[in-house]
Amino acid sequence: MNQKGGRFTLPGETGMEDIVAKLAKEWQVDAVRDSDGTQLSQEILDMGLQVYSTLCLVRADNAYMKAHPEYRQQIYLLSEPYVAQGDTVEIDLMKKFFSEQFAPNTDCDIHRYWQVIDRTTGEVMPDFSCEGNLVTVRGTTPYHVYTVSFLAYQLWEPVSMYNHLTNDWGDREHLIPLDVRYPEAGAHTLAVLEEWLENHPQTDVVRFTTFFYNFDLMYDEHGKERQVNWFGYAACVSPLALEEFEKEYGYPLLPEDLVDAGKYNTPFENPSKKYLDWMDFNQRFVSQFAKKCVDIVHKHGRKAIMFLGDHWAGTEPYGKYFQDIGLDAVVGAAGDGVTTRMIADIPVKETEARFYPYFFPDVFHEGGDPVGESVRVWLKCRRAMMRKPMDRMGYGGYLSLAYKFPDFISHVTDVAAQFRSIPENANGTKPYCAPFKVGVLNAWGHLRTWQTHQVAHSLWNQRCYSYLGAMEALAGLPFEVEFLSFEDIRNGVPQDIGVLINAGDAGTSWSGDTYWKDPQVVASVRKWVYEGGGFIGIGEPTACEYEGRFFQLADVLGVQKEVGLTASCDKPPLEKVAEHFITKDLKGPVDYGEGMTMIYKAADDLEVLDVQNGSCAMAAHACGKGRAVYFAGMPYDLQNARLLQRALYWAAHDEAEIDNWASDNVETEVTAYPETGRFSVVNNSLSPQEGTVHAPDGKVYAFSLPAAGCVWMDI
Amino acid sequence: MNQKGGRFTLPGETGMEDIVAKLAKEWQVDAVRDSDGTQLSQEILDMGLQVYSTLCLVRADNAYMKAHPEYRQQIYLLSEPYVAQGDTVEIDLMKKFFSEQFAPNTDCDIHRYWQVIDRTTGEVMPDFSCEGNLVTVRGTTPYHVYTVSFLAYQLWEPVSMYNHLTNDWGDREHLIPLDVRYPEAGAHTLAVLEEWLENHPQTDVVRFTTFFYNFDLMYDEHGKERQVNWFGYAACVSPLALEEFEKEYGYPLLPEDLVDAGKYNTPFENPSKKYLDWMDFNQRFVSQFAKKCVDIVHKHGRKAIMFLGDHWAGTEPYGKYFQDIGLDAVVGAAGDGVTTRMIADIPVKETEARFYPYFFPDVFHEGGDPVGESVRVWLKCRRAMMRKPMDRMGYGGYLSLAYKFPDFISHVTDVAAQFRSIPENANGTKPYCAPFKVGVLNAWGHLRTWQTHQVAHSLWNQRCYSYLGAMEALAGLPFEVEFLSFEDIRNGVPQDIGVLINAGDAGTSWSGDTYWKDPQVVASVRKWVYEGGGFIGIGEPTACEYEGRFFQLADVLGVQKEVGLTASCDKPPLEKVAEHFITKDLKGPVDYGEGMTMIYKAADDLEVLDVQNGSCAMAAHACGKGRAVYFAGMPYDLQNARLLQRALYWAAHDEAEIDNWASDNVETEVTAYPETGRFSVVNNSLSPQEGTVHAPDGKVYAFSLPAAGCVWMDI
Repeated sequence: MNQKGGRFTLPGETGMEDIVAKLAKEWQVDAVRDSDGTQLSQEILDMGLQVYSTLCLVRADNAYMKAHPEYRQQIYLLSEPYVAQGDTVEIDLMKKFFSEQFAPNTDCDIHRYWQVIDRTTGEVMPDFSCEGNLVTVRGTTPYHVYTVSFLAYQLWEPVSMYNHLTNDWGDREHLIPLDVRYPEAGAHTLAVLEEWLENHPQTDVVRFTTFFYNFDLMYDEHGKERQVNWFGYAACVSPLALEEFEKEYGYPLLPEDLVDAGKYNTPFENPSKKYLDWMDFNQRFVSQFAKKCVDIVHKHGRKAIMFLGDHWAGTEPYGKYFQDIGLDAVVGAAGDGVTTRMIADIPVKETEARFYPYFFPDVFHEGGDPVGESVRVWLKCRRAMMRKPMDRMGYGGYLSLAYKFPDFISHVTDVAAQFRSIPENANGTKPYCAPFKVGVLNAWGHLRTWQTHQVAHSLWNQRCYSYLGAMEALAGLPFEVEFLSFEDIRNGVPQDIGVLINAGDAGTSWSGDTYWKDPQVVASVRKWVYEGGGFIGIGEPTACEYEGRFFQLADVLGVQKEVGLTASCDKPPLEKVAEHFITKDLKGPVDYGEGMTMIYKAADDLEVLDVQNGSCAMAAHACGKGRAVYFAGMPYDLQNARLLQRALYWAAHDEAEIDNWASDNVETEVTAYPETGRFSVVNNSLSPQEGTVHAPDGKVYAFSLPAAGCVWMDI
Repeated sequence: MNQKGGRFTLPGETGMEDIVAKLAKEWQVDAVRDSDGTQLSQEILDMGLQVYSTLCLVRADNAYMKAHPEYRQQIYLLSEPYVAQGDTVEIDLMKKFFSEQFAPNTDCDIHRYWQVIDRTTGEVMPDFSCEGNLVTVRGTTPYHVYTVSFLAYQLWEPVSMYNHLTNDWGDREHLIPLDVRYPEAGAHTLAVLEEWLENHPQTDVVRFTTFFYNFDLMYDEHGKERQVNWFGYAACVSPLALEEFEKEYGYPLLPEDLVDAGKYNTPFENPSKKYLDWMDFNQRFVSQFAKKCVDIVHKHGRKAIMFLGDHWAGTEPYGKYFQDIGLDAVVGAAGDGVTTRMIADIPVKETEARFYPYFFPDVFHEGGDPVGESVRVWLKCRRAMMRKPMDRMGYGGYLSLAYKFPDFISHVTDVAAQFRSIPENANGTKPYCAPFKVGVLNAWGHLRTWQTHQVAHSLWNQRCYSYLGAMEALAGLPFEVEFLSFEDIRNGVPQDIGVLINAGDAGTSWSGDTYWKDPQVVASVRKWVYEGGGFIGIGEPTACEYEGRFFQLADVLGVQKEVGLTASCDKPPLEKVAEHFITKDLKGPVDYGEGMTMIYKAADDLEVLDVQNGSCAMAAHACGKGRAVYFAGMPYDLQNARLLQRALYWAAHDEAEIDNWASDNVETEVTAYPETGRFSVVNNSLSPQEGTVHAPDGKVYAFSLPAAGCVWMDI
């Protein structure tokens, strides 16, 4: 393995100078960084490493914030629902909210910026008043349910709150988040940045974490997480933002538009036009203000990079304005293949993976298994980086914790070497891919590239894992993947797409919900399949009860779901076909995760590939000149990754190509870089594996790999 | 056991005279009947038994029907959907329909009585023509889907078709169904009845099977069942009916109103106003014409009874007009407790159960197990009849088949004795019941008494059994049960109701679908619970996504279902309470049938009673002065029946009453008739059981029962 070293950012810490120096050699580190709560001593700064400094501008000057509470960030919150029993009801706004995090903004005109809604009728209630945290609503109807949507000040910047509570920082000062949209606060922030740069001459790279508005994170009355939406824009709000929005768009954004009956416009919903406007409005502001910051950093001769996460609302790395910011790099937490690709695919000069485990006490405690944790994540990230190499790697947290685990230290030496081998062997060229592109079709498209079916990055969720697994599989499979919205395909599926994937629960944006009532959408996809396209549906694809159908493309998929309204129709028996190209590599039962019930045969010529609990769990269907495949669910495992790979090749009519640069061992995967004449084999399993690799020219290469091993060979 | 004998109708058959005579004694039979396809010889008619004659008027004169094809019954059918690939599409109307059962009615004005619909847009297509069975639609949009809703003649009366095909009757003539709505056909039918009565002087009881229009039964191109809806009105249609309907209601009924995008107004849907009008229109016609028939029978000094099933569309035994018919009795197939109660509770002078198994070759063949089949059904029917005794019993089919199974013959002797003991001990009085009524709340209410969650009587369906089980449990539990519609509770839940049950899948009539967006409905039920009422939700109760909620009464139930739109909200852990009144009798894991996923805690004070796959499967919740209970599903078994019983007493705050006339053995159940001073204990299991019965006065009675046994004791 070619080991030039470098490409590695180490979290340093005052007091750990010897260890930093030792690891700089052992891990071949070329950069050192601080973290929230740690500082780098002069000795570390002088070690000759590049210095990355974490800077979170919105919590950078707490003294200023204490003097200017009017510039605190705000958020729209929805109170708990209250049942009226008479003609008034009292609502405690802060019930189930963390009083150290939020306080209602009663400084604003609450009749303009708040809304009381009768959730039993949907009507807005005009007659209410507020005393302290208590809202009294008058004119209520007994046994209707009422909520208040209210503006609240953010008293505690949520990421430092999380760090504070997780690490038990006791009486350390709570940092108050500043809203740069207020001109004076914005100007102050830029001045702080200038001053900071002057005071940190040894900083080479400013690592913004991130810019101005945090993802939605709300804590409950016990100081525990209540709600997290990594993709939310609820915390961008302020009376000023709302005024500017109305001026620009010509209509006011109402509280309900943002609290959305408590769903807070989660990306699981099809976005409303108003919410898309709100996102665009904030993206423009954030990118423009972030550019000012980046320009100042550049003026000082430093690099500016962004940590993807934390205050990244509005930066939208796959949005229209991201590249305007002018960043030198993006660094992000690589918790699995999906998040790895989310960072790796960002259109920016350089990307850096911050690997797990974070050096925090949750893993690095006596009896903890940091190596196990690391391998589990690394295997997923590695196969993703094989498809899309990243430039740098690093870790976060407290080195003082990690250093107590010598097996972890030596494990990271190996990880770093493997990591470096990828960009070095790829050398900026493209890997061999299937001769067609895969399009992931949902309501969000490109904007949510590698961001589908997620509440927060790498966070397991029962509603998601059966779909996210397909994305995880794709992250490391030999396909070019595009994320397409319904608008992107309304007038025709792009020429270079070979197979469309539509995966998700009915009623969600990932499946598409009411988009499937749109005749243009339905006809466009159907036409494309009839003319030869491939379509893979997972879970409840194309689902929207309309005109007697639940899966609108049941004719294409060849399967339908019985939701109760056609229970009186007999369902044909589900007889499995003896063998099929798609299932050829199966070694055992397929895991469909949550799976589905009552998926039945809706086409005589359906090939049923698997049946579970009397329900069709996997099927293949030729439709016109095209082909469709159905899966009841697809959590990530190696067998499912291979299954999806085979299904994609089958759906694209490219069965003959599947052995090109492929391993005959399902536990292993191959990535070839024809332009550099190198290819890798990764062992994704925890036991030794051997097998052979087939090259397109007919050559066969044998390999033998240790558990979790990886090898590069010449073509 | 008191054995007066009688109460038993035996199916006779020419050639089986000796056996009829022998069984008349052995089974203490007092009536003999014929069946479709069998006749009674003079010898049998002369045996001194009451003679029941089966008469199906709509297939009684096939010669007439051949001469008058214009009076054939009709039906609205929906063609298969066809994808257009250009500006026309050809639709084969009969694709997937049985050509021996149906033929398109091209005699009518097809542009008035048919509809071509673009199912991708919902638009009606005006430009189409028909040649033979082929419809050509012009002006289509490529890749949209088209259907034709068309009137079809019924060529073969569906029940005799079923009998013919099931019993392989070869070239026996196909009987054509007559539509009595045509005045000449109706007059002819009444004349046929008169003549028939004159020709059958020995008939004591005319057993109509049933009246005029069959439930919806459609066969496919292979002559196999394609669709069955025991509650449908699709086969009542004709141009004449549609004209009369329009004249009366002032608006035309369109094909789409009846084919309903292929769902054919299954009772699983909330009924539309138009469909309710159509039902009422037909009910009035059927009851009026049936009354004419009954009057003629009475004029001849005979009794008129109705078989519930077959051509029972429009008779609606729980409808407004049923009692106008003037029937002497209703007989129906008792396939389980629910269907037993459906017959037993009908407001008519006398009810008769036709027990399973039917004497058909599907059960009575070599290696068949008719006794096992009978016991399985009998145990369910018996506990239902204990709550609501029936007057008579009988069997159907061919005695020649049953007589080959001597163990079955002796088993029936026992069944008949047990059967008779019920009306004899009850003697027309009411059994002891819990001190509150149970209301089953759905979109249909009283009209579908004991007819909920069913495609056809006693037919297992994966979409239904997890709900129907609760009805099956109720059929034999000590509660007065009422079936309530949302209209019945809109202005307040009736005073005598103690607990409401709402059970079903989201989007169906059984749960209520959009009724739960109706503020009056929601507030009425919520108020009632707050003021002390009990509420039991099963599956997806009160479900309708609206204003941020899926279960609209999540606050009452204390649970909510995550369907994906609030996946970003943290879900509190599900910690089971150590013990609870409701679960006290559980001996093992509860069977929730299909169950639910992602049911989470929506109230801090919820008592979680069971968790399955990370989802709350059973819970109890105090709400205001009332109580709610949630079950993820409730297929019928003895443990679940007891569970429901306990949940009902708990929800009604009547825990103290639960031991009154109750057995301490879950496998057994008690019914007391205080007015006659008798009570029964039934052993619902297939092993011997013993235990004790607690009377309200504190007395305790011991019992010991053989497998499936039953005993009556004095109070």
